[in-house]
Amino acid sequence: MNDSGDAGAKRARGRPRKSPDRTDDPRSHIVAAAARAFAQHGYEATSIRSIARDAGVDPGLVRHYFIDKPGLFAESLQLPARPDRAVRAIVSGPRENIGENLVRFLVTTLDEPIARSRVLRIIHTALGQEFAATLLRQFLQKEVLTRIVSGIDDDDAALRASLIASQIVGLIVARYGIRIEPLASASPDVIVSRIGAVIQAHLDDSLDKGSVPSE
Amino acid sequence: MNDSGDAGAKRARGRPRKSPDRTDDPRSHIVAAAARAFAQHGYEATSIRSIARDAGVDPGLVRHYFIDKPGLFAESLQLPARPDRAVRAIVSGPRENIGENLVRFLVTTLDEPIARSRVLRIIHTALGQEFAATLLRQFLQKEVLTRIVSGIDDDDAALRASLIASQIVGLIVARYGIRIEPLASASPDVIVSRIGAVIQAHLDDSLDKGSVPSE
Repeated sequence: MNDSGDAGAKRARGRPRKSPDRTDDPRSHIVAAAARAFAQHGYEATSIRSIARDAGVDPGLVRHYFIDKPGLFAESLQLPARPDRAVRAIVSGPRENIGENLVRFLVTTLDEPIARSRVLRIIHTALGQEFAATLLRQFLQKEVLTRIVSGIDDDDAALRASLIASQIVGLIVARYGIRIEPLASASPDVIVSRIGAVIQAHLDDSLDKGSVPSE
Repeated sequence: MNDSGDAGAKRARGRPRKSPDRTDDPRSHIVAAAARAFAQHGYEATSIRSIARDAGVDPGLVRHYFIDKPGLFAESLQLPARPDRAVRAIVSGPRENIGENLVRFLVTTLDEPIARSRVLRIIHTALGQEFAATLLRQFLQKEVLTRIVSGIDDDDAALRASLIASQIVGLIVARYGIRIEPLASASPDVIVSRIGAVIQAHLDDSLDKGSVPSE
């Protein structure tokens, strides 16, 4: 209904629309511009400012709708939650429960079918297209993994964060994607306990790493 | 050169070829028939006998080339190794080294680019297509995971095997697919030590699972 006619009325001041197929909703302009920018330049090299310029709006409007770059990223990929915020909240809670709380957040989020299919689609795309892998990697490293180990003052923290990431990605793919049993039909409590223990062991550095040097 | 003309000369006795585009190499007939059968019926419902029938050859010839069903499966997916055999060999070795030896096998295999891209492609396909997920799941459950925990006489063995699978799949996707750092560029020894410790902890049931019931 709204894709032609008096469409110019709400245009940002002095900014001609660059593409005739845009709607007049500035929010969707911004999301579309963000998706293009993230895909083309990756997560790190994209800024709120450059997305605002591309969408023909003020950076303040981008912040008004999406607050910050991870918020805009989550929206552009239709993520079911803000992983960066969830992790921040979990890490600020009891230290000995971080592993279980992370897994509970994940399982609670992904036991919902739409959320699950979106997250699986993101991993699927990352395994098929280089730019998508780069985008996902940069987002996870910058906004999620560094937060998970933010309480650890140790040369080993980044490696531990990436080991935790491997377990989380593996849980998602094995439980919800390939659906390996009995993992796929185990109750959330069992998953929280068993996978949470792995993550907590990385955080506490309590695994017996054998005789191999830790580099 | 060979796709028409005197192609009938080597045909299996009394079996007309069903498709005009087949070559006369019985080995490739068998692999093509296996790929079709696995995709259509899954791993469990497919037999050497049904594949032989479909390829128009004797089951003995299928066994001559591929030995057994997992061998034929590995060939039909161009797997870089026989995971079922590797696992059998590793599990027959020292019990306390199973975790590290599994990861060393995996990393040694996947640090080779062609092997890596084949395995990533299989996971990618499984995340995009239901039949591929089913096929991979059935193969892993039947031929690989049960072997990993074959020394464990315990109600919990199957769950532990699937937890181990989640870590292995996660290692593959995170290190070689999304390439999360520093996991992606860590040395094989570090990966063997750190991920091996997780797998060994599942095998030894030495993780602190907290207060949540183990179901």
